[in-house]
Amino acid sequence: MTLDDLDTPVLTIDLDVVDRNIRRTQEYMDRHGIAFRPHIKTHKIPAIAHRQIRAGAVGITCQKLGEAEVMAAAGIDDIFITYNLIGAAKLERLMRLCRLVRMAVVADSEDAVRGYDEATRAEGCTLRVLVEMDTGGRRAGVQSPEEAVALARRIAAAPGLVFGGLMTFPTTREAPAILAETVRQLERAGLRAEVVSGGGSGCRFHAHEHAPVNEHRAGTYVYNDRAMVAAGTDTWDDCAARVIATVVSRPTPDRMIIDGGSKTFTNDPVREGGFGYFPDYPQAVMYQMSEEHGHVDISACPRKPKIGERVVVIPNHACGITNLHDEVVVHRGGRVEGIWKVQARGLIR
Amino acid sequence: MTLDDLDTPVLTIDLDVVDRNIRRTQEYMDRHGIAFRPHIKTHKIPAIAHRQIRAGAVGITCQKLGEAEVMAAAGIDDIFITYNLIGAAKLERLMRLCRLVRMAVVADSEDAVRGYDEATRAEGCTLRVLVEMDTGGRRAGVQSPEEAVALARRIAAAPGLVFGGLMTFPTTREAPAILAETVRQLERAGLRAEVVSGGGSGCRFHAHEHAPVNEHRAGTYVYNDRAMVAAGTDTWDDCAARVIATVVSRPTPDRMIIDGGSKTFTNDPVREGGFGYFPDYPQAVMYQMSEEHGHVDISACPRKPKIGERVVVIPNHACGITNLHDEVVVHRGGRVEGIWKVQARGLIR
Repeated sequence: MTLDDLDTPVLTIDLDVVDRNIRRTQEYMDRHGIAFRPHIKTHKIPAIAHRQIRAGAVGITCQKLGEAEVMAAAGIDDIFITYNLIGAAKLERLMRLCRLVRMAVVADSEDAVRGYDEATRAEGCTLRVLVEMDTGGRRAGVQSPEEAVALARRIAAAPGLVFGGLMTFPTTREAPAILAETVRQLERAGLRAEVVSGGGSGCRFHAHEHAPVNEHRAGTYVYNDRAMVAAGTDTWDDCAARVIATVVSRPTPDRMIIDGGSKTFTNDPVREGGFGYFPDYPQAVMYQMSEEHGHVDISACPRKPKIGERVVVIPNHACGITNLHDEVVVHRGGRVEGIWKVQARGLIR
Repeated sequence: MTLDDLDTPVLTIDLDVVDRNIRRTQEYMDRHGIAFRPHIKTHKIPAIAHRQIRAGAVGITCQKLGEAEVMAAAGIDDIFITYNLIGAAKLERLMRLCRLVRMAVVADSEDAVRGYDEATRAEGCTLRVLVEMDTGGRRAGVQSPEEAVALARRIAAAPGLVFGGLMTFPTTREAPAILAETVRQLERAGLRAEVVSGGGSGCRFHAHEHAPVNEHRAGTYVYNDRAMVAAGTDTWDDCAARVIATVVSRPTPDRMIIDGGSKTFTNDPVREGGFGYFPDYPQAVMYQMSEEHGHVDISACPRKPKIGERVVVIPNHACGITNLHDEVVVHRGGRVEGIWKVQARGLIR
């Protein structure tokens, strides 16, 4: 079976490109002595997580417990959930995972630490907790080295918790200085940040400039997408995730409608505008989407696709699109190698 | 079990509100003698489609064959797919549906009609085909009454096809005049548009001003959302779909982070900005989302939510959010009545 035999729209993954992407980033990290812990949010598929581990990753990163549960059940045994896990239901699931595999989580508040503390005491488990720091990403995270040290002390004092280090996202330009100052203050307090974890696919090849960062997380790099190409770190050839769509309408000479819209591609924007890149029609602009229609301006295309023609689209955002598709078709050079369920898709809790 | 017992984030559906929304719109259509054919793209759940039919809908609208297959298997027997179905794989599935239930589709090109013609000839089936007209929505659809008449003739001449009428989306301000002129030209050609089908939730209570439209399609009205409230047709009390989320971080006095982002809410925008409405914190603005984090500005809130607090969010776009969730929790007044699988979710083909 080849890609030509598949009905559309369909999300395809080029396994040769995936393998190359995994190798390239892992080799960079190895060269610089930086531990690499890929984020599985992009693919949500255990088979790909195992490829990342086999290539040399020290473990994986998950954002949600449900993702970690799928990965642990599939044999991944070192998982970092970069999320404040709050509430009894989640803590119970976290303790189950702790008994099964090596787990770490983050905290940016006394409330989060108290939950981990009480849960590990009750269950007799040990849990590594890293302090999440806001280094300019302005999402979660403590706001200063002083706050980080206070929270690290609180973690280190809890019998079931191990202070695991510091975590930030993304590794901003300001992050290294903030993290270094925090590491110094921690040392003065008699605490050691074993792991200093930075993150981001766009900045991954700068990780060697991010000391004291000694571990890096990246997700998108495994598939890449239009946003990564726009960021300049990767090329169209590095884009493993592509949608094959069919032209279903040509209402005017300048407009074509394809059989996928926001429920196939997501509404995730890129700075460059438009909702995808057509490698065979570089001038085509998907300027708008309905839920199941892509509206494409083909006025600048020298040759214009006909109704029934299949067109390839590189999506704006690989992580967003994966989350819409129950399965992906995995191929090498167009020959279908498997239809893989996106096993951790939709696991938002 | 009540909503308070559910872990977050979770998409909840108030069945009392759903029933009221269904009744209100159906009563309006009945009062004006307009056939109503709800679009199931919003809920994707057979149990809700059956409620719409029982209330008086003449059938349902689907956008994708996969949705129609789920609904036909669940006992819905009159289905209109408002989509140009192109290619052998889809035509084969369409013919199977034709043998099972009463089916109609649209065409806006000779290519689409040829496919339907050949498939019905080969299978000995009969298929109703409506001509899709672009009345200013600038998506798919023929561009003029003349084109519509030519295509209607082509449909009427095919032995297995029945010319079913005209379809447009949305019912624009210009649509009634264009459709009326087309109906006149069709009559001169000896053709009758049995159904003239308009669509849109925002314009649904104007359907009586849209003659010759005699059938209306709407999807979002069943749940409603922030976009519908912004459009002025519905109120917050009419919003059946709400996400319960938990505050997982309060990094600064003015910022809270909730445990859902673009993979829980979609990146679907509204003109008003922000990614959801917090009925208990009307001043809160979800100004940004990561995939699993909602970034909320609470600087204008007199009382500020604490870590661990559960907050309710009315999403921007009910149809988009449904497509992200494998299941919804159905309740009446907070008491859980069921956990319903979103059966037609992700069926993009």
